[in-house]
Amino acid sequence: MKSIHTVQVMWSDCDPAEIVFFANYFRWMDEAAHVHLSKLGLGWHDLQHKYGTLGLPLVSAHADFKSPSRFTDVLTIETEVTECSTRTLTIAHIFRIGERIAAEGWTKRIWCRADPSKPSGMVAEPIPQDVKALLGFAE
Amino acid sequence: MKSIHTVQVMWSDCDPAEIVFFANYFRWMDEAAHVHLSKLGLGWHDLQHKYGTLGLPLVSAHADFKSPSRFTDVLTIETEVTECSTRTLTIAHIFRIGERIAAEGWTKRIWCRADPSKPSGMVAEPIPQDVKALLGFAE
Amino acid sequence: MKSIHTVQVMWSDCDPAEIVFFANYFRWMDEAAHVHLSKLGLGWHDLQHKYGTLGLPLVSAHADFKSPSRFTDVLTIETEVTECSTRTLTIAHIFRIGERIAAEGWTKRIWCRADPSKPSGMVAEPIPQDVKALLGFAE
Amino acid sequence: MKSIHTVQVMWSDCDPAEIVFFANYFRWMDEAAHVHLSKLGLGWHDLQHKYGTLGLPLVSAHADFKSPSRFTDVLTIETEVTECSTRTLTIAHIFRIGERIAAEGWTKRIWCRADPSKPSGMVAEPIPQDVKALLGFAE
Repeated sequence: MKSIHTVQVMWSDCDPAEIVFFANYFRWMDEAAHVHLSKLGLGWHDLQHKYGTLGLPLVSAHADFKSPSRFTDVLTIETEVTECSTRTLTIAHIFRIGERIAAEGWTKRIWCRADPSKPSGMVAEPIPQDVKALLGFAE
Repeated sequence: MKSIHTVQVMWSDCDPAEIVFFANYFRWMDEAAHVHLSKLGLGWHDLQHKYGTLGLPLVSAHADFKSPSRFTDVLTIETEVTECSTRTLTIAHIFRIGERIAAEGWTKRIWCRADPSKPSGMVAEPIPQDVKALLGFAE
Repeated sequence: MKSIHTVQVMWSDCDPAEIVFFANYFRWMDEAAHVHLSKLGLGWHDLQHKYGTLGLPLVSAHADFKSPSRFTDVLTIETEVTECSTRTLTIAHIFRIGERIAAEGWTKRIWCRADPSKPSGMVAEPIPQDVKALLGFAE
Repeated sequence: MKSIHTVQVMWSDCDPAEIVFFANYFRWMDEAAHVHLSKLGLGWHDLQHKYGTLGLPLVSAHADFKSPSRFTDVLTIETEVTECSTRTLTIAHIFRIGERIAAEGWTKRIWCRADPSKPSGMVAEPIPQDVKALLGFAE
């Protein structure tokens, strides 16, 4: 299951090189991940209220930049959950301007609950089977 | 050669989970990379004026998040150029709060000049030998 | 002439108080101003290419915050040019969530061209009559 | 009582006009306000823990832009509480690059506690006399 989310590049997203400052792609990945998971009833609020998690804190984030995007460009972001293991899931994104790929990237996130005794403030937990099923990773 | 740059986490850097929103680490990597390279006379303006490049556009960016950082935490960012090939270099960072590691990450960047005939608007070029020498990667 | 632009509040727009960090309203004012002026053929690129200006640099910005907006809220931004004098114009915005007003604000901007001899790097110029007419302030 | 806080303009703070995007001044006002109030023991955490407030939500924010600031400029921010009434206080800032003023601005904030029955989620309260005294507005 894939979903599409679009954003338009704003003036404030661009730097003096007149292209999108790269950290904004990560901001948009978070936005697109939320839009995607919300369609499955797994938005950040759903996760907190239904499952008692801390949202989905990040383990890693990665992006490859293929071509620049500029002010007023419309970015089409294709989003998909590409991996779902016992405690983590990976959400991948392709950013396109028309047919041209601007960037590709992913975030790896962890299923966890609050644990003030840990330095990280949280402890990983197994992803519930019904969530895995919603994500298309039923066992 | 390593350098240290510090930033203090501000209220606006944090999200409703009361931790730094992850995209800000990438913003700080860019800042720390610039601080590091400037000490070698290779800041963005130096690169444009001395070498006629477009700055150092990104090929990839990556981060691993080890533990959260929060409002008022002071992040010590250790920065180092860890790889320098013909046309690209990799700048790596470790973010610490005291002894605890908050995050590690890197950006891979390309040496290039403007070329309006390319979809990307630029073309990669070999990194000059004097730059490689400044970075500690003399041949 | 008024126009409507909508934005949805994202996780990264909110701070640890779980409300939109106020500087983001100014970012959205810039976005809404551009959307509004673009409909009249007066977007930033139009201004540069047709009129040789530097865009519309800001003289002042102001906002009054009426009630909080939160993650996933949809903000409806009503935008209008409310003042157009010889060299400046004021663009006003009302942010609503449904019927409730979240914020009101405006930016005052100046019509100018580049002038490297000035400390500001620019010099104010009279707004052309055809632009005033497009904005509904014909004399 | 005035305090000074400095920030250096980063690449990501600047837009395609090669100047600081104006919303960043508001981000820095918040930072400078916090630095200033923290010196008096009135940082955001202090306010929550000692006084049970919601921090200091904004009523209004204003800025006048005098001259541009650019990548690598060091901004010296002079901060002062200029008004303290029964329920609100105003914190004013002057941004300088050397002797040149780049911007001036202020935020007006309200002393309040949480009240879920209100649309705003909060209710204004009188500022305690000891806080007024710390701010130099003793009666």
